[in-house]
Amino acid sequence: MSRLDSGIRRLLAQKHALEDAAARIRGLPGCVLEFGLGNGRTYDHLREILPDRDIYVFDRQVAVHPNCVPPEDRMFLGDLFDTLPRAVSQLAGQAAMIHLDIGTGDRDASMALVARAAPDLIKLLKSGAVVVSDQPVDHPSLSPLELPSGTKPGRIYMAVRV
Amino acid sequence: MSRLDSGIRRLLAQKHALEDAAARIRGLPGCVLEFGLGNGRTYDHLREILPDRDIYVFDRQVAVHPNCVPPEDRMFLGDLFDTLPRAVSQLAGQAAMIHLDIGTGDRDASMALVARAAPDLIKLLKSGAVVVSDQPVDHPSLSPLELPSGTKPGRIYMAVRV
Repeated sequence: MSRLDSGIRRLLAQKHALEDAAARIRGLPGCVLEFGLGNGRTYDHLREILPDRDIYVFDRQVAVHPNCVPPEDRMFLGDLFDTLPRAVSQLAGQAAMIHLDIGTGDRDASMALVARAAPDLIKLLKSGAVVVSDQPVDHPSLSPLELPSGTKPGRIYMAVRV
Repeated sequence: MSRLDSGIRRLLAQKHALEDAAARIRGLPGCVLEFGLGNGRTYDHLREILPDRDIYVFDRQVAVHPNCVPPEDRMFLGDLFDTLPRAVSQLAGQAAMIHLDIGTGDRDASMALVARAAPDLIKLLKSGAVVVSDQPVDHPSLSPLELPSGTKPGRIYMAVRV
């Protein structure tokens, strides 16, 4: 598969998974956390499909399109393992949804990163909250969800906080 | 429209236009020129759908995925207005297809860039060659083509060398 086809599949998988997650949390109040702001594409989509939610973003720095810069009091900037404990002290048990997009090209390093972050991520989630992630998040408190129909497995993962 | 939706539409428009162009030049021998290698996504697609064509790429520098680095003798690296005259002296009248993806966020600057490059681009094209571009290329030797069905206008442009 060409990298163009692969890019299309990845963006479509993100779109469909985020929209599915948004539908699943309709009855669950709470904020949304985006880990890995990147160029702001999925953040822009989240604020479009979840206009009434507080959306907090996490990244090393802001490198987004000028139209997609989050409000300053919704950004956790810096190393994930510095910002995550701060987020837990501020938002424990308050998130209805997390979108994790922190994988790098190195699969093993990405898996290790997520495994290390998982315990704190879990603390942020309400019961019934949905996690959308670019890689599987393995934790006894998370139960995998079926992907929306048409979304190819292996590009995106969904789970619910039990 | 969110930047995620916009990104999906852009990649789909590129895919469908490039595939349509590839079908249109089926009976026309000649090389393919990619202006704006970028991260190599469309280059990778071109070499997948046109495996028997020589594909030459133009960019300021190589910043592609390691799997997508073109052969050294197919790259024109440097400022477009340095490489374009060299390409004309080497490949005049030999291109069956050009993909132009050199637009920046600044629409006026991008239009000016394409307008300045157009006379040399035309010299590279065979009669019947197809131009796929992220912005309209205005030249008396080019006749606009209808986009493939389902491709939203305004994201990609196609024309044939008359």
